[in-house]
Amino acid sequence: MRKYLDTIESPADVRRLSLDALETLSEEIRAALIRAVPVTGGHLGPNLGFVEATVALHYVFDTPRDKLVFDVSHQCYTHKMLTGRKQAYLDPDRYNAFTGFTNPSESEYDIFRAGHTSQAVSLALGLAKARDLCGQAHNVVAVLGDGALSGGEAFEGLDNAAVIGTNLIVIFNDNDMSIAPNSGGVYGNLRELRETQGVAKENFFHALGFDYRYVEEGNDVRSLVEAFEGVRDIDHPVVVHIHTRKGKGLPWAEANPEAAHMVAAGTDVSDAVPTVAPVQESPTYQQLTRDYLSQKLAADPNVVIVNAGAPSGVGLTPEFRAGCGRQFVDTGITEQHAVAFSAGLARGGAKPVFMVMASFLQRSFDQLVQELGLNRSPATVLVFGAGFYDIDATHAGTLDIVMTGNVPGITCLAPATKAEYLSMLDWSIDQDERPVVIRVPERIIEGEDGFDRARPGGWHLAQKGKRVCFLSIGSTVELARGAAKLLDERDGICATIVEALNYSSFDEHLLDGLLYDHDVVVTLEAGILCGGFGEKVARYFGKTPMRVMCYGGKKEFLDRVPTDEFFQIYHFTAEDIVADLEALGS
Amino acid sequence: MRKYLDTIESPADVRRLSLDALETLSEEIRAALIRAVPVTGGHLGPNLGFVEATVALHYVFDTPRDKLVFDVSHQCYTHKMLTGRKQAYLDPDRYNAFTGFTNPSESEYDIFRAGHTSQAVSLALGLAKARDLCGQAHNVVAVLGDGALSGGEAFEGLDNAAVIGTNLIVIFNDNDMSIAPNSGGVYGNLRELRETQGVAKENFFHALGFDYRYVEEGNDVRSLVEAFEGVRDIDHPVVVHIHTRKGKGLPWAEANPEAAHMVAAGTDVSDAVPTVAPVQESPTYQQLTRDYLSQKLAADPNVVIVNAGAPSGVGLTPEFRAGCGRQFVDTGITEQHAVAFSAGLARGGAKPVFMVMASFLQRSFDQLVQELGLNRSPATVLVFGAGFYDIDATHAGTLDIVMTGNVPGITCLAPATKAEYLSMLDWSIDQDERPVVIRVPERIIEGEDGFDRARPGGWHLAQKGKRVCFLSIGSTVELARGAAKLLDERDGICATIVEALNYSSFDEHLLDGLLYDHDVVVTLEAGILCGGFGEKVARYFGKTPMRVMCYGGKKEFLDRVPTDEFFQIYHFTAEDIVADLEALGS
Repeated sequence: MRKYLDTIESPADVRRLSLDALETLSEEIRAALIRAVPVTGGHLGPNLGFVEATVALHYVFDTPRDKLVFDVSHQCYTHKMLTGRKQAYLDPDRYNAFTGFTNPSESEYDIFRAGHTSQAVSLALGLAKARDLCGQAHNVVAVLGDGALSGGEAFEGLDNAAVIGTNLIVIFNDNDMSIAPNSGGVYGNLRELRETQGVAKENFFHALGFDYRYVEEGNDVRSLVEAFEGVRDIDHPVVVHIHTRKGKGLPWAEANPEAAHMVAAGTDVSDAVPTVAPVQESPTYQQLTRDYLSQKLAADPNVVIVNAGAPSGVGLTPEFRAGCGRQFVDTGITEQHAVAFSAGLARGGAKPVFMVMASFLQRSFDQLVQELGLNRSPATVLVFGAGFYDIDATHAGTLDIVMTGNVPGITCLAPATKAEYLSMLDWSIDQDERPVVIRVPERIIEGEDGFDRARPGGWHLAQKGKRVCFLSIGSTVELARGAAKLLDERDGICATIVEALNYSSFDEHLLDGLLYDHDVVVTLEAGILCGGFGEKVARYFGKTPMRVMCYGGKKEFLDRVPTDEFFQIYHFTAEDIVADLEALGS
Repeated sequence: MRKYLDTIESPADVRRLSLDALETLSEEIRAALIRAVPVTGGHLGPNLGFVEATVALHYVFDTPRDKLVFDVSHQCYTHKMLTGRKQAYLDPDRYNAFTGFTNPSESEYDIFRAGHTSQAVSLALGLAKARDLCGQAHNVVAVLGDGALSGGEAFEGLDNAAVIGTNLIVIFNDNDMSIAPNSGGVYGNLRELRETQGVAKENFFHALGFDYRYVEEGNDVRSLVEAFEGVRDIDHPVVVHIHTRKGKGLPWAEANPEAAHMVAAGTDVSDAVPTVAPVQESPTYQQLTRDYLSQKLAADPNVVIVNAGAPSGVGLTPEFRAGCGRQFVDTGITEQHAVAFSAGLARGGAKPVFMVMASFLQRSFDQLVQELGLNRSPATVLVFGAGFYDIDATHAGTLDIVMTGNVPGITCLAPATKAEYLSMLDWSIDQDERPVVIRVPERIIEGEDGFDRARPGGWHLAQKGKRVCFLSIGSTVELARGAAKLLDERDGICATIVEALNYSSFDEHLLDGLLYDHDVVVTLEAGILCGGFGEKVARYFGKTPMRVMCYGGKKEFLDRVPTDEFFQIYHFTAEDIVADLEALGS
């Protein structure tokens, strides 16, 4: 029986409680999070640290009239519990009923969908300016944390907000951690501010023209209520810097802040010392890449790994990073800088390998164009999470071919087999002529190495057949093999299978050869078709009698679709393809 | 006769001069710039202010062993004069022999091509880290200025540099101007620093962990030499903040810093008061947009124009901006923020119109995806400079369809006629359902308004014919008309002409209808074909007997190609197209 949480249906119920009751409510919420999140998986550490602040925000501010904008928004679990969605954290039958991020389609208290970082100030400033233009009067509150401050967009927003000069309250949740430990000079200033209770000589926020308040006890609901009441209805921009503890209240999470940042479903957090994550049954490309790079770094002191503040998704474990020494740079959550920095490294004679999630690489499109493509900087970019994954739409990696494959000057490689991946990676690091993007496949497929280092634009003819040619990108070669097999069984057609190992250019010799004895080319890519690979092939053959059938994703945002279901949804199974071919009359 | 400049072939010659001689050399260079730049056109104001600093940099630092990285790099004219390229500024017959930006293919003293802003620290930090990895020892110097500091990428670079903690010298050229007047809270701090000779209590650079020096007399070569000598071979990152005068030495330029930032070829700068820019002979979309928005702003106080620190290219004159009052926001050079800010404005009930150059919009790709597309924020983005323009590759706007047309959730419109543009703009501002990108055409074409507000995904059937269908984007409708006329004259074929007014979706009804009585669809777009519009059409018809011929640009970077020549180079004239159709047998 939860004395207060059971009575809370909306923030109005929070506002009826006493300060003592708010403390108890916070404890109840924390207990619920500790029970639920390790089961469902999710952002455990950040939410444990932000319980009291969320309670205090809804207590002091008149939400939803006052507007609350979460950066990243993975810190929103308490917010969801207070705004009509608590059953998703209390009732095991309803776990996963809601997404892990704010989402306006779930609640009027959620104003934006936000999964990337550092944009909350900009969004909130837009709300504030709109309020002023429309003659309204309410508070606009932006919540930042977990490394958001290192992202340039946060700086741009703060810098602009300072001159617009209207009511805008920025809550900076400082738990002294990003996803990984914080990296960046500004975090030194934040440390000084914490150590001096907010009165250090240097103050980053003051330098930008912001008013500033400091709350040392960021997990004490009374201190927070007092601070928030002090800035409510303020007539100018203010930062409230609150010092919280990531993983607060769960010994394992407090002791392992990086591991506890995001836990997998079914994580055992009962032990105070080690993390007991589920054992991975098959090797991953993350492991494979670590193993390869360990040797490469040791052999060549000029090789350097770059990561932009999000090491976990790309497999850069704390142990591995520590072992890299000065051959690893965490730039902070700074994708624009990370690409330009890599370009500088390459021009300076080092051999950078930038490891990044496809979704976050979207932040770097201009740098891909200017710093890599135009400058032909021989950096290597390893893109993880590209394609169809079971993930929120905010983190989808289906636009990677759009933003890399269409940029002049970049060589974009898509290995199908493990052997090809390692071969490409090794070739790319050591060459010094061009920027290379490697699309790390979803899963490891064994097979031959069809990559020709002397001809990085070449594709691999995996099987020579007739009439129908399957042209696959990365892991979809498995689908090509399956469809070819089915086509042979059902229709007696022995199809050609080509791995398009390079999706930034055509293997024209190979394509032109198909015109002699093929009627149909079938392109297969895990990614959206618009702006992708298949339609380039369709254009190539547009003038000819060759029919081209493109399989891939629709131009849409999808949430948490199990990886295999993408292929069902998009009519993209071996059965579908063969049926289409039969309908076409081949 | 120039006493010193005539003797300078490389920076080594500069280093042989006395300090007195450096002053005279600076005067000679300034005189040359004042003579040459108004004739050729170019970044007049910024370069006049940076003469002495450039001379001092090459005097103090051992270039090219020491590395000099220019941000934006439009401040590089003096650098070019000192590094073997002075004839381009001295000899009228050789004016325009070199580009207006640094370019490694011109000189070993140019390390990167850089035309966008705020990336110099990142690039330089890469060089510095590479130097350390490779066991070298030289200085790395980054030059920032003209608003570069408001760009988030500069913050990301500075923030990361502070913790890497090696020799990196950032020259911050502070002329108290961006392209337009500076906008952003950090500029308040810079003003305080100027007013206190660098000792203000708040110091943005200190807050990031940077060492800091101030030079009040940024146009005095002795002060600069002294300051630069003080930081040469330093073992940690340092900012040297130099206070210069934009337009220094030319009364007109000093009095008109915004107009003098970039002057057109043939500008008369002799008059101390007014700018005498060449009279434009025909109305432009910039003018048209201003005229429309003037009325719209007056009629609806919720409409607000957003610009990211680059008003001139989109026609936002100082007079117009002043007239907008609080309905105009210059966010500073902050494209990421500007898009997210617009999303916030839209969500808050205002009606934002973000006006931006296509090339700079590349900085906002992730925000287009997340803040506009995923959040379906009903903001309007007007993209100027999209397509084929006579401009440096650094500023090319040929990737706009790639980065807007492939993003889920964004409605992308491409008006062909003036009437359509105004109709779309008016519709977009007042609707509140979706983000809209309007690709502002290259030039004004008269004609009917084929845009149907009730069906914004619809295309316009401008001429109904048979066998051949021309499908044009924007201004290429003129080419479609010309090719159709020629096809009729030469081959007696009356072709269909369709304006694809929406390039983010298909008018499927119209396309499917073509299958009955057309053999060929010809797509026409001013932009690169890869990831563009035409290949989507090729995919659409891939399974059918319809032939599709796509005309557009190659995936490459081109410098300063006269607009019309693009169409020659890309085999993209009416004559070319009809010849191709004849070869196809239609």
